Amino acid sequence: VDKTRLEAFSDGVFAIAITLLVLDLHVPEVGTGSLAHALLRQWPADASYVISFLTIGIIWVNHHNLLRHLERADRGLLFLNVFLLMAVAVIPYPTALVSHYARTPNATAAAVAYGSVMVFMALMFNAIWHHARHSGLLAPGADPREVSGITRSYLPGPLLYLTGTLAAFVNSSASLLIFAAIALFYVASSSLWGRREPV
Amino acid sequence: VDKTRLEAFSDGVFAIAITLLVLDLHVPEVGTGSLAHALLRQWPADASYVISFLTIGIIWVNHHNLLRHLERADRGLLFLNVFLLMAVAVIPYPTALVSHYARTPNATAAAVAYGSVMVFMALMFNAIWHHARHSGLLAPGADPREVSGITRSYLPGPLLYLTGTLAAFVNSSASLLIFAAIALFYVASSSLWGRREPV
Amino acid sequence: VDKTRLEAFSDGVFAIAITLLVLDLHVPEVGTGSLAHALLRQWPADASYVISFLTIGIIWVNHHNLLRHLERADRGLLFLNVFLLMAVAVIPYPTALVSHYARTPNATAAAVAYGSVMVFMALMFNAIWHHARHSGLLAPGADPREVSGITRSYLPGPLLYLTGTLAAFVNSSASLLIFAAIALFYVASSSLWGRREPV
Amino acid sequence: VDKTRLEAFSDGVFAIAITLLVLDLHVPEVGTGSLAHALLRQWPADASYVISFLTIGIIWVNHHNLLRHLERADRGLLFLNVFLLMAVAVIPYPTALVSHYARTPNATAAAVAYGSVMVFMALMFNAIWHHARHSGLLAPGADPREVSGITRSYLPGPLLYLTGTLAAFVNSSASLLIFAAIALFYVASSSLWGRREPV
Repeated sequence: VDKTRLEAFSDGVFAIAITLLVLDLHVPEVGTGSLAHALLRQWPADASYVISFLTIGIIWVNHHNLLRHLERADRGLLFLNVFLLMAVAVIPYPTALVSHYARTPNATAAAVAYGSVMVFMALMFNAIWHHARHSGLLAPGADPREVSGITRSYLPGPLLYLTGTLAAFVNSSASLLIFAAIALFYVASSSLWGRREPV
Repeated sequence: VDKTRLEAFSDGVFAIAITLLVLDLHVPEVGTGSLAHALLRQWPADASYVISFLTIGIIWVNHHNLLRHLERADRGLLFLNVFLLMAVAVIPYPTALVSHYARTPNATAAAVAYGSVMVFMALMFNAIWHHARHSGLLAPGADPREVSGITRSYLPGPLLYLTGTLAAFVNSSASLLIFAAIALFYVASSSLWGRREPV
Repeated sequence: VDKTRLEAFSDGVFAIAITLLVLDLHVPEVGTGSLAHALLRQWPADASYVISFLTIGIIWVNHHNLLRHLERADRGLLFLNVFLLMAVAVIPYPTALVSHYARTPNATAAAVAYGSVMVFMALMFNAIWHHARHSGLLAPGADPREVSGITRSYLPGPLLYLTGTLAAFVNSSASLLIFAAIALFYVASSSLWGRREPV
Repeated sequence: VDKTRLEAFSDGVFAIAITLLVLDLHVPEVGTGSLAHALLRQWPADASYVISFLTIGIIWVNHHNLLRHLERADRGLLFLNVFLLMAVAVIPYPTALVSHYARTPNATAAAVAYGSVMVFMALMFNAIWHHARHSGLLAPGADPREVSGITRSYLPGPLLYLTGTLAAFVNSSASLLIFAAIALFYVASSSLWGRREPV
């Protein structure tokens, strides 16, 4: 398989999942009450929107970078990619859970649901990359340092997200802070190992 | 017609239909009850999401593979493809029916609705492939063994899905298991006849 | 402007509008009543889905065919195309109106809303084609017979849809039949003037 | 990074955001009352749909024009673009607020929410353009007059939208008129500095 339709389909799913996040923002029914106060009180929903949008945006940049190193795809990669997209596409749902149950006793369950999706997503990134390296799908001219940089960057992902998920049982706000920190880690890490190349 | 916009439009519909499945997952209203229990109780909705996501993913891989063997499209193919996309795009609806009415006396009607869409979808795959072969749309260099492999792989589809649909009148869970088995059959079958080629 | 991103953006809007139609199909709440009966009773919603899906599919085929004759786009074409897409993207809304108010005294108002969108859409097709012809955007090798065939095919569109719209004041079902007949006219007409070419 | 996937992803988000606007149009529940009157009474929702559709359409044309002058993208541009898309994708939400609270005492808060998104969006356009110019991402053959034309055209954007936002505290209708005027300004301005080139 050449990569063109794989990229087109993936980009479509990323673009739709990231855009559907706006459906989690509801017009508050205040009647003649104050809309301004209602909008300010719903800051957890706004924060969820921003964090999830950035997270999907970062996943897209990483996916983009991963595929750039491949010369071609095979059927196994197509199916692993479908599983990755399944996790990406469902992100608006745990986002809605977190935004709805923030500051309630159920915030822990919502954060665990969010974190579980992220653990699965990080596992799929590792599976795709592992499959690509061991099935000869990498482009011949791929820089070995970049390749091992990606490997090193993906490996801690599942463990990091698992830590954030388990932290929810202690403190659900700490859990969300860890998820935000992981996102920042991936921005920084991708900037470090991506420095020498024009992407 | 060259195939580029046909692929772009189809990929768009596939990407959106597969991503809209998340809208069938609703934030449960538990107030101060247990969100964890509510999430566990809604496993039929989660299972429907996973099965439908994989099914649309498999249909996409098959569609991708079908178009790969075509050199060009004609107007008839465009319209047959619109009918196929009509079935793909509606999948989130019978998925919602199944997920809503699982474990109720209405599970049979929901499974029949789901199966009917699948029968129609399988018929359209056969119609597109039949049209492409008999209107000279295949690429000149298409491997005859692959072409007949696709033909053989599509032919039983409508009958298989009809069997699953009729099984719903006996037992709706058996029906859903058959739908899952058909999906696995197509993954395996596409791996078998697709083995010798680099896709 | 080269046409690539214009096509990509348009295909995206077409793909999304056609896929959003499924959101007009609602899971009926029947409790322990009969889901089968409820599904059969909602045939107007199913018929609306099919007609609107085919209509957007036909519009996409026509849009595809129109752009194929252009060599390039200019800013005026981009903006006229945005207006055309505005009509296409709103189609799910009058479709929902028709499907909700069929067989009620309000069916006339719903059919008029549907028809008005179609009149506007047909006007935009004429405006785009007129602009393309008179601003030198056509491909140099465009077949004059095909070009005038498209012109002749677009011209009656607004009048035909206006007739269907006005018919709603007499009989809303007749109005919907006229809309379906216009769709068939465009399928047939595009087959006639498109016969000699490989598209 | 070559620009292809950046354009594909951005076009996807633009296409979806612009198409999701239709979800802000609700089928009015009039029972046996008059649907025609209900549709006429909801003209603020219709006007919001048209203005937001045109606004996103204009942003898309500008984004298209901006990327046309770039030779390549870097990681910083990808992330700045994600922030721009975040503003574009959220537009359906403040549009729904404005359409819901027009002609109520809360119209001011809704207009401020709408304007704040627009200010952020205009800031992101400036940030992307500034980054592209100072990181050597412009195409070597870019016409200096066009480049400085774009710079001059983007600079007043944040201030213009801020003015419209602050005007909401005096009169929310004036605020919406200013937003519509800014859109027209960008259509005219892009026509002026874009006149000599074939786009």
